[in-house]
Amino acid sequence: MEKTVDLNCDLGESFGIWKMGNDEAILPFVSSINIACGFHAGDPDVMHKTVQLALDHDVAIGAHPGFADLQGFGRRNIAITAEEVYNLIIYQVGALQGFTHALGGDIHHVKPHGALYNMGAVNQTIAFAIAQAVADISKGHAILYGLSGSALIEAGESIGLRTKSEVFADRSYQPDGTLTARSEPNALITDHVIATEQVLQMVREQSVTTVTGSTIPLKAETICVHGDGVAALKFVKKISQSLTEQGIKIKA
Amino acid sequence: MEKTVDLNCDLGESFGIWKMGNDEAILPFVSSINIACGFHAGDPDVMHKTVQLALDHDVAIGAHPGFADLQGFGRRNIAITAEEVYNLIIYQVGALQGFTHALGGDIHHVKPHGALYNMGAVNQTIAFAIAQAVADISKGHAILYGLSGSALIEAGESIGLRTKSEVFADRSYQPDGTLTARSEPNALITDHVIATEQVLQMVREQSVTTVTGSTIPLKAETICVHGDGVAALKFVKKISQSLTEQGIKIKA
Amino acid sequence: MEKTVDLNCDLGESFGIWKMGNDEAILPFVSSINIACGFHAGDPDVMHKTVQLALDHDVAIGAHPGFADLQGFGRRNIAITAEEVYNLIIYQVGALQGFTHALGGDIHHVKPHGALYNMGAVNQTIAFAIAQAVADISKGHAILYGLSGSALIEAGESIGLRTKSEVFADRSYQPDGTLTARSEPNALITDHVIATEQVLQMVREQSVTTVTGSTIPLKAETICVHGDGVAALKFVKKISQSLTEQGIKIKA
Amino acid sequence: MEKTVDLNCDLGESFGIWKMGNDEAILPFVSSINIACGFHAGDPDVMHKTVQLALDHDVAIGAHPGFADLQGFGRRNIAITAEEVYNLIIYQVGALQGFTHALGGDIHHVKPHGALYNMGAVNQTIAFAIAQAVADISKGHAILYGLSGSALIEAGESIGLRTKSEVFADRSYQPDGTLTARSEPNALITDHVIATEQVLQMVREQSVTTVTGSTIPLKAETICVHGDGVAALKFVKKISQSLTEQGIKIKA
Repeated sequence: MEKTVDLNCDLGESFGIWKMGNDEAILPFVSSINIACGFHAGDPDVMHKTVQLALDHDVAIGAHPGFADLQGFGRRNIAITAEEVYNLIIYQVGALQGFTHALGGDIHHVKPHGALYNMGAVNQTIAFAIAQAVADISKGHAILYGLSGSALIEAGESIGLRTKSEVFADRSYQPDGTLTARSEPNALITDHVIATEQVLQMVREQSVTTVTGSTIPLKAETICVHGDGVAALKFVKKISQSLTEQGIKIKA
Repeated sequence: MEKTVDLNCDLGESFGIWKMGNDEAILPFVSSINIACGFHAGDPDVMHKTVQLALDHDVAIGAHPGFADLQGFGRRNIAITAEEVYNLIIYQVGALQGFTHALGGDIHHVKPHGALYNMGAVNQTIAFAIAQAVADISKGHAILYGLSGSALIEAGESIGLRTKSEVFADRSYQPDGTLTARSEPNALITDHVIATEQVLQMVREQSVTTVTGSTIPLKAETICVHGDGVAALKFVKKISQSLTEQGIKIKA
Repeated sequence: MEKTVDLNCDLGESFGIWKMGNDEAILPFVSSINIACGFHAGDPDVMHKTVQLALDHDVAIGAHPGFADLQGFGRRNIAITAEEVYNLIIYQVGALQGFTHALGGDIHHVKPHGALYNMGAVNQTIAFAIAQAVADISKGHAILYGLSGSALIEAGESIGLRTKSEVFADRSYQPDGTLTARSEPNALITDHVIATEQVLQMVREQSVTTVTGSTIPLKAETICVHGDGVAALKFVKKISQSLTEQGIKIKA
Repeated sequence: MEKTVDLNCDLGESFGIWKMGNDEAILPFVSSINIACGFHAGDPDVMHKTVQLALDHDVAIGAHPGFADLQGFGRRNIAITAEEVYNLIIYQVGALQGFTHALGGDIHHVKPHGALYNMGAVNQTIAFAIAQAVADISKGHAILYGLSGSALIEAGESIGLRTKSEVFADRSYQPDGTLTARSEPNALITDHVIATEQVLQMVREQSVTTVTGSTIPLKAETICVHGDGVAALKFVKKISQSLTEQGIKIKA
């Protein structure tokens, strides 16, 4: 059987006059994108344009809802109730769905952004609120993207949602399966050869070699890549190329 | 044949801790409501609650999109392009549709709010952008509510949308069919007997007696009422009661 | 020597079209007010009006800066750096100072709002950032209001700021001097006789009787009262009257 | 007597994670800067950093208040009352003054941004509201920057404010002294030789050669330059160099 893996990337993160990212350059190399929905980034004009770009490139469209914190780019934890989380997700996914319906597509998946992603990964109450919102707004059809091994993936599965376990090409892992904190010097993998090896191992072996040298199992169904900046773009191309050379199909 | 008319009211205009309106008290007397979508009023939590209330009372749910101007309550004209208007509508109607889909209903109509309503009434470019957005996001199913005789109604009809021409119970009319400006002393009708007579004439005769005493034709398919405040609520009850007594059914 | 105490109240919490509070009714009974600065409540128009009201009633004007969270009314904790806190305070106090300078007054004190007040009460880093901002923007002249016994009062004193230790008329206290959590049934004191007794004890004895019946020392320099709602207003009048009858002068 | 002219540039237009401009690169070539105040661009963190940069480079600090329209970058006209304009200015200039006071400087001037600048240039009511706010918040000390020959300059002078008449290096002029609309093909001067000649003529002769070839008087006290992008930066350097070579001192 042919091996496939999904490469996903956050897109549509410009806001008003402020540009971010290389949306058009990255699109040929990924199979799915996560579009900001106006709360932490993106605005109605940017969303329209990004949905159109995704349709033009035939990549799977995901909603990327986040906290209502434009200045903090949705990266600051906010103490929020489960009900507020549920409504945040419905609102933002609904708004993006407006554009996909108007332009002729549909929402393929939902991936929470930033602090919401991180809180959903460890907090069961938040995780369930996110999963339930995704189930309710999509009548169960959208796929929930979340950190591999997280409470979010568990919550999604427990209510019958399809999920995709996300892993990172450019982050190192701890023996307990968590990501090395960004505050640690070895958190980021900057050598694309090592990153590519890690990706190949994750996809083929469903395991990862941790910072201590141990190998642990890791479910890898979608790989998050970043396209912002020249170096990041080259990184994505390398990974994409290696996967293809190894006979692994990039597909949402 | 039985005569029917729609009574519509703006609802869900609270924001965060700030309450506005008598949403639960007004619902038994109207056939359709226009729910604020978070840009000029409303927030995801208020929208969830208001959609649920509407479903509980079995009234038709409309989206009430406005300018992104919370402080000005969407009442200040903003110089905006047709493309920006289109995207504003898609975003906000999509967000509300998120809640109707999650909770089990659908969007019955769209009525622009405040400055957007007024600009769409006189500016053809804005009117077409609004109408096209409503058509695109609802696959042509939503009804466009607009000022009777306005450019917005014309734009909707020209692209094949169903429309409802809106008239006002508590506003006086000029011989040219426009509303008397609020700056004029006789703009508002505060006597509910006169207002009820005007409503009955508009519904039965499809005409209105203007401030000069002349009678002009006026298409009246939906009547806008306000439920904010004790007096307004009594006003709505009177109108609703009179219509029913006259054998006119209140129905979206 | 005459005993004096400050009664303070949060004011200017309306936003745009949404009204909150009884600002004009409460002003005759308090000696200082804390004006919202546009981030969690208030807007430039409300701030102008509130500063003018304070000048008319000759009460001391305080800035009441909070998190940039209008929907959550600044009550949700946000994970924020000390530098971000410092800048939030400078910005908001500066904005209010704009109005006091334009209208002929000055900032007498600063009291953080909601989640920022609570975080500053227990987190030394946040407390220092707040205190330093107050010192820097006022050249050391503004008084820092904070929870009695908190990290914020300590931080203010350590850098040479004048502070006022705040106590609550309508909240019960734990043996360790903290407020009983709002989730507990006995958190709020709703009987104005008991509240007035608590206030008199706090002002005269600088102590409070806790929920266990023990008496503990408590520095009480300013008493927070709420004027929102008919009941609250009566409450403030009672406390104000009792203090005056007991020969305690209400003064900022 | 030595000829001097002021070169001013808009700065601090980043917001949150989104960067804009070359603030550090442009500072050595200008004598005064206009700092965004958080409504159309800038945030408290960006304002702090920009005020510090200005103090480090010893350039005159101006407030650059705009409409509360982050998505539209303050460039969209908003129908606003004189009172709202007054309060917008007080709030934003006050906020920036917070940073200048905290860091050790002061506000030298105020220049409205974008749509507010344009509306103030032609609308006397708006112009007076802006001028009065600048006078009130600065006790008459700040200088009002406005379009040369505009209602704003007139309003400022009529209430006794010092003003600086602003001209543009890279815009062509109509025979009536107005700028050629941006929609016209010859609106922008992209050749730095022509732009430099125009600047020298404006500064030395206080006149400008219009698009029809006629020469008209034009008061030129401060020249607006843009530093965003490599080309713009080179442009500024050329103009700065030419002025210096011609013995004209660049000074706020």
